[in-house]
Amino acid sequence: MKEADLHLYDQLLELSLFQGMSRSDLAQIAGHSKIRFDKHLNGDTIAKAGEPCHDMVFLTNGRAQVVTTAYDNSYMVEEYVSAPYIIEPEHLFGLSQVFASTYTAMEACNIMALSKEEILKLADTHLIFRLNLLNNYTTIIHKKENATWRTAPESMEQRIGQWILAHCKRPAGEKHIKIKMETLAKELNDSRLDVSKALNNMKAEGKIMLTRGMIHVPHAERI
Amino acid sequence: MKEADLHLYDQLLELSLFQGMSRSDLAQIAGHSKIRFDKHLNGDTIAKAGEPCHDMVFLTNGRAQVVTTAYDNSYMVEEYVSAPYIIEPEHLFGLSQVFASTYTAMEACNIMALSKEEILKLADTHLIFRLNLLNNYTTIIHKKENATWRTAPESMEQRIGQWILAHCKRPAGEKHIKIKMETLAKELNDSRLDVSKALNNMKAEGKIMLTRGMIHVPHAERI
Repeated sequence: MKEADLHLYDQLLELSLFQGMSRSDLAQIAGHSKIRFDKHLNGDTIAKAGEPCHDMVFLTNGRAQVVTTAYDNSYMVEEYVSAPYIIEPEHLFGLSQVFASTYTAMEACNIMALSKEEILKLADTHLIFRLNLLNNYTTIIHKKENATWRTAPESMEQRIGQWILAHCKRPAGEKHIKIKMETLAKELNDSRLDVSKALNNMKAEGKIMLTRGMIHVPHAERI
Repeated sequence: MKEADLHLYDQLLELSLFQGMSRSDLAQIAGHSKIRFDKHLNGDTIAKAGEPCHDMVFLTNGRAQVVTTAYDNSYMVEEYVSAPYIIEPEHLFGLSQVFASTYTAMEACNIMALSKEEILKLADTHLIFRLNLLNNYTTIIHKKENATWRTAPESMEQRIGQWILAHCKRPAGEKHIKIKMETLAKELNDSRLDVSKALNNMKAEGKIMLTRGMIHVPHAERI
């Protein structure tokens, strides 16, 4: 077993999809699956919103910017992901088999891609992978259900925080939201003035920074 | 093959989870899986919110009432499902392996239950079942994503309609929502007066009926 392989296996084992698998399972997968390896340079597009998602794409090295845009283009959310990370595994199946966001390399990135057919084969041959895949998808559903049925926030600041988190892939890290005050007010069913006041309170508390048409969140986990 | 079996197979084939399977696939499943069959009388509880979801429960005959309650008990949604229907397949895996709602038989009901282990076996032996299961779960995710990224509603009436649908299992049929005007106003970030006006407009349009603390929706598909 090469050192590079060992490093890759360690990374994969950090992902919930491979949790509980052994190195020998992974070696077997590596030996029996058709895996595509790609390198992307800084600025390269790794995956583009709206394009078909035929493969499960693993970011095995590097850091990428993620940009998601509202359907009517009225706002845009920018965030960052680091290896090891799986790019939208939930879009390999179901109603919408296209990427929801655009992923751009922010440094030299390595990816590993397995086709849908290979993923279905893995789910066939490895019970633990099958279980991880099903747990992964249903957990996304449960988190979204929790958001629907929990108590509505008391303050406008909390509403804004909740709205931002609902539009992020990860509930942590740096985020930049390009949105007009009017659009956010419409999203939250409130007045431009109330939204502006709440944003300025959040700014005073050090939770966000504001520039023209942009909300910057240094640490989404503290919002 | 018995007539009752044929009827059961026809029903199962109507469910997205069994789509594309043949009668011989289903006969094989029936012959090789441990299936529990149960009868419930009018008024019996079929599944209870908060109780562990160990089995995939198929309602194969009859009609059931579904009640879901907000986490803080501030509101409650009542709706109805008819056979063939699968009771919360998405809670067999993942973060929250308990039923989210309570299902009560409204007439004599038959159910068929397969344990999680049996479902994992089916997903192993039948590619099409594996694919249907994954498509089923990811489709739920995509519908919830669509709700997050689509354009915010223009009117308060539309906001109320969207809120009601977000809290229903099925986007059609009869619903009864037990909620105080103040609670709905808080959920929607609006004033009690605006919510009351919008509800009365919806009532005038024949979309809902109102009684003390209750919103009745005769046809959710028209809301």
